[in-house]
Amino acid sequence: MNTQFPAERILLGPGPSPVPARVLRALGAPTLGHLDPQYLAIMDETCEMLRQVFQTKNALTFPVSGTGMAGMECIAVNLIEPGDEVIVCVNGVFGGRMKDVMERCGAIVHPIEIAWGEVFTLDQIAATLDRHTRTKLVGIVHAETSTGAHQPLAGLAELVHGRGAMLVVDAVTSLGGHELRVDDWGIDAIYSGTQKCLSCPPGLAPVSFGERALARMDARKTKPQSWYLDVSLLRKYYLGGGGGRVYHHTAPINMTYALREALAIVLEEGLVNRIDRHERMYKRLRAGLEAMGLAYIPSHSLHTLNCITVPAGADDAGTRKRLLEEYGIEIGAGLGVMAGKAWRIGLMGHGSTVRNVDLVLTALREVLK
Amino acid sequence: MNTQFPAERILLGPGPSPVPARVLRALGAPTLGHLDPQYLAIMDETCEMLRQVFQTKNALTFPVSGTGMAGMECIAVNLIEPGDEVIVCVNGVFGGRMKDVMERCGAIVHPIEIAWGEVFTLDQIAATLDRHTRTKLVGIVHAETSTGAHQPLAGLAELVHGRGAMLVVDAVTSLGGHELRVDDWGIDAIYSGTQKCLSCPPGLAPVSFGERALARMDARKTKPQSWYLDVSLLRKYYLGGGGGRVYHHTAPINMTYALREALAIVLEEGLVNRIDRHERMYKRLRAGLEAMGLAYIPSHSLHTLNCITVPAGADDAGTRKRLLEEYGIEIGAGLGVMAGKAWRIGLMGHGSTVRNVDLVLTALREVLK
Repeated sequence: MNTQFPAERILLGPGPSPVPARVLRALGAPTLGHLDPQYLAIMDETCEMLRQVFQTKNALTFPVSGTGMAGMECIAVNLIEPGDEVIVCVNGVFGGRMKDVMERCGAIVHPIEIAWGEVFTLDQIAATLDRHTRTKLVGIVHAETSTGAHQPLAGLAELVHGRGAMLVVDAVTSLGGHELRVDDWGIDAIYSGTQKCLSCPPGLAPVSFGERALARMDARKTKPQSWYLDVSLLRKYYLGGGGGRVYHHTAPINMTYALREALAIVLEEGLVNRIDRHERMYKRLRAGLEAMGLAYIPSHSLHTLNCITVPAGADDAGTRKRLLEEYGIEIGAGLGVMAGKAWRIGLMGHGSTVRNVDLVLTALREVLK
Repeated sequence: MNTQFPAERILLGPGPSPVPARVLRALGAPTLGHLDPQYLAIMDETCEMLRQVFQTKNALTFPVSGTGMAGMECIAVNLIEPGDEVIVCVNGVFGGRMKDVMERCGAIVHPIEIAWGEVFTLDQIAATLDRHTRTKLVGIVHAETSTGAHQPLAGLAELVHGRGAMLVVDAVTSLGGHELRVDDWGIDAIYSGTQKCLSCPPGLAPVSFGERALARMDARKTKPQSWYLDVSLLRKYYLGGGGGRVYHHTAPINMTYALREALAIVLEEGLVNRIDRHERMYKRLRAGLEAMGLAYIPSHSLHTLNCITVPAGADDAGTRKRLLEEYGIEIGAGLGVMAGKAWRIGLMGHGSTVRNVDLVLTALREVLK
C-alpha cells in the first residue's frame, strides 16, 4: 500500500494555500481528548487569537468543525427561521451559494444580482432594502473567490442596521490577507476558512457572532434545523459558563493545534504587516501579468486572489497541467460561468512572497511561449 | 506564545483513541489542492479502504467533512423529507440525539425507549413497526457510547425491509473494533467517526449509502435542508462521473491523509484479527475490573467501551483527575443520566493492548485504594 508523502506543490490557486512547516508539525502533535484541560486551554487560546485576527471583542468567536462552507451554513441555520426575508448580494459563485444555503433554511431570499467581477454600491443595496422592508439580514461576500472581486464594506453596516437588518459577511478569502475590522465595521456575523490567508490546512471554519446576532438567536421560536451547527449548544462547549463546559461533539483536535499555530504566525508577523505584504505582492504580480498582456477580470481586485482572462489562443487545461507537472505550481481554473475563461492565481498567507510571484510569472512566460 | 506540544495522554476514554505515530506523521504531510490528481488518488484509495472496513460494495462510501455527528446529520438530511415517519431506538445519549437530529429534518419520530444499558429485541422493533405502518426508516445505534451497550443487528434488516422501511445504523464506536457487515446485514445507510476504533484524529465521518438509500435520495421532492451535506452534490465530487469531478467544498486534505494511513493500518492487521484483539482485550479488562468488584452497566457490553458503575464511596471526578495527572490516562465520565454514576473505559483501535489493559487496572487499583 502506498503510504508515502505526496509530491509537494506550490499552492497558488484559490486555496488551499501553502502551509508552513511549523503548522504541519503542530498538526501532527499527539491527540488529546476534547475535554482534557490541556486541550481546552489550547482551544481558548485559539479563540482568543481568532478574535484578534477578526478584530473583534465578540465572545462567540470559534472555529466550526467543518470547512468554510460549514461556517456559511452555521450562520444561516442559526440566524434564519422559515419565512424570514433576507437579501443576498450575488456577483459570483459564493454569493449564489449563500442564496441557496439560506433558501434551504426556509428564507425568502431577495437576491441582488450584478455582473460577475463587479462589486456592489451602497445605493444598490439601499434601493433593495427600500423595496423589501421586512428584510432581516443582508448577506454579502467580502472576497468573491470565483471572480477575485473585492467588495468594499465601508458604510454598509450603518445602512443595513438603519433598516433594522443584520449584516452577514463571507470572509473566506480575505481573513488574514485584507483589512477586515469586524467590530469597527459593524459586522453582525462573519465566517471564514482556515486554508486561505491563514495558511492552515482546510477543515475548520472560523466564525464570529456579535450582539445583534446573539439577540436574534436568543429570540428564535424554532430550533435551528442543524443539530451539528446549533450555536445554542456549541456555545456551552466553546464558552462554558456557570455549569462548566458541556460536551457537544468531538472537536477536530489536531486541526485546532494547526489553527492555533497558524494564528500565532499571523500575530507574530502582525496584521498590519501581513495585510501590507499581501498588497505589495499583489501589485508585483499584477504589474508582471499586465506586462505580459494578461487582463484582470474584476473591476476591483482582491490582493489575495488574481482572476485573469485566459488569453486568446492559450490552452486552459494544458497550461495549468504544465504548470503543475513541470513546475509543481497549482493555479486555479475558472469557476461557474468563468469555467474555461479564467485563471485564478492566489497569493494567500504563506504563499504571498516575492519568490512565488517571480516564480509564477517566470513559469507562465515559459509555458505560454 | 506557547506553541509547544501538549503532554501526551493515554486515551482510554470514549474517544478520541490513541493515534499511532504513523498516522500523525501522515497528517502532517504537505497539503495538496483538493482537485490535484495526487489528492484525488489518495481520496479514491481512502474510499476504497473504507469500503473494505465497512464490508460493503456501496460505491457511495466516503468521509463526510465533519466529525461523527456530521455523519449522522448527513444521513438524516438526505434520507428524510418533512413529514416522513421514522422510528428511532433510544437507549442512551446517541439514540436520543438521532431523534433530535431527525426531528430537525421535519420527521415525525416514533421513539422506542428502553432503559439505558439495555438493548432492543427484534420483537420490540417489530411491534413498533406494526403500530406505525407508514414508517420509512428505522434508526438504531450499534454501539451506544453513553452506556457501552452493544446492539445485536442480526435479522433486523429483514424485519425492517419487510415493512418497506430502511435501516440506518450509528457505528461510531464499532467500526474497526466490532464485527460489522454492512452488505451482509442489509444496512441501508451507516455512519461512523474516525477517532474511535480507526485510531485517527477526529474530523471526518465515514458514511456509506446502499441502493435503497440512493433510490430514496433520487426520489426526493425537496432539496436536503443542508447544502454542506447534500449527497446529490457530494457524490459529483467523490464519485465523479461523466463530467469528471465537480468541486463542492474544499475537503479536509490532511485529515484524509491521516484516515488513509489509519485504514491502511487496519487492513494490514486484518479486520478479523483486529476484531478478535478487541474481544480479547475486553475480556482481559473485564476480568480485572470484576475482580476488583467493579460492575458493568450494560446487559450486553461492547468490546470497545467498558461502562462501569462508580463504586460506592469513590470520588468520581477526583479519581479521573488522579488518573489523568498521575498516570496520564484519560478515562471517560458518565454522560447524560449517567453523569456522576459511571466511568467509561475505552479500548479502541491502537489503544486496545495488553499494556494499556494492565496499566489501567494497576492505576485504578492504586487510585481507588
